[in-house]
Amino acid sequence: MTDKTRIRRLPERAVSEQETIYSILDEGLVCHAAYVVDARPVVIPTLYVRDGERLLIHGSNSMGLARAVRSGSPLSVAVTLFDGLVVARSAFNSSANYRSVVVHGTARLLAEDEKFDAFDLIVEKLIPGRLADLRPSTSSEIAQTSVIELPLDETSAKVRSGGPEDDSNDLDQDVWAGVIPMELVPGEAVPATDLRDGIDLPDYLRSYQR
Amino acid sequence: MTDKTRIRRLPERAVSEQETIYSILDEGLVCHAAYVVDARPVVIPTLYVRDGERLLIHGSNSMGLARAVRSGSPLSVAVTLFDGLVVARSAFNSSANYRSVVVHGTARLLAEDEKFDAFDLIVEKLIPGRLADLRPSTSSEIAQTSVIELPLDETSAKVRSGGPEDDSNDLDQDVWAGVIPMELVPGEAVPATDLRDGIDLPDYLRSYQR
Repeated sequence: MTDKTRIRRLPERAVSEQETIYSILDEGLVCHAAYVVDARPVVIPTLYVRDGERLLIHGSNSMGLARAVRSGSPLSVAVTLFDGLVVARSAFNSSANYRSVVVHGTARLLAEDEKFDAFDLIVEKLIPGRLADLRPSTSSEIAQTSVIELPLDETSAKVRSGGPEDDSNDLDQDVWAGVIPMELVPGEAVPATDLRDGIDLPDYLRSYQR
Repeated sequence: MTDKTRIRRLPERAVSEQETIYSILDEGLVCHAAYVVDARPVVIPTLYVRDGERLLIHGSNSMGLARAVRSGSPLSVAVTLFDGLVVARSAFNSSANYRSVVVHGTARLLAEDEKFDAFDLIVEKLIPGRLADLRPSTSSEIAQTSVIELPLDETSAKVRSGGPEDDSNDLDQDVWAGVIPMELVPGEAVPATDLRDGIDLPDYLRSYQR
């Protein structure tokens, strides 16, 4: 989870392949977007999707992130998938399995006429199949929404996977070592309390996965 | 997942209670730490624990985060627990359930003699019960480790929970609405390929949960 680990270990390395970067970005739901205000960093979680060579980050006109983009602040956006705890035979070699992408760049706020399509894209990529079930967004809703476009020009990925990499001196210790895998798992859908009778859970939600 | 949501909806609100903040910080495993280099933001994922009124963030001496702290950059650190997708009857009211804490402040790197205890604390808080099974860290290992201490002086929490909050106009639509809960769940432990025979999975890992 740290540069230390990246430098010291083979399984965790800078991964430049676009495919890996895309697969991480496509599996994630939440990004952490950092911007600068008065020389201080601010980081916030928000929803995003990847659309080709760009991220579309969901926001509102009133949020600090949108204001920062409008004023020209560069962004740093991270998407991290936590895959497990690496339980090594020493504290030092204990670690985490994860896949993460960081994107740096200058973003822009989409214009009103671009936001309709972008907003639809965000909904459909977060919940494939959903868009067809929804009425179109209204101009008033779109006016309250901001969509931040960040090009995927400057991206890096880090991946650590596999078991612990213990020092050879530690291997004869009488202590368990391995990995506790962790996964973000969807639970059973919970209907809204005001859901009308006779409306079944659609298939695209029954089998939802990332 | 956005300020828009925070402002518009009752279930998501700024939560000032220390208890909520602590419970979020204690459930999380990964934080996203943002710092500033040459007026640009950088955000990275890393492991952390809460210890009383401070976060202890795990790193290495070579990492950019540690360098930034050494040079006096303020930090912004977010911990986000993703609890589910809020599937509303419009794109606009669709959202996410989540709990997040953001901590702002100036951090410091712990000194060599402080790092032994802090590193032990990180291991034990991430995997309660583990420390007793491990040999002590060596001075060389500690020298390669950095532990960043960030006081919990300036913290805020945002929580969104519960079902969709649809516009009353949308309630008679023939469309499902509700929540797809999501949870980070531990899977079955995977022993290291070089694990010696006859070493059982310890109880503290068998029942691991956050």
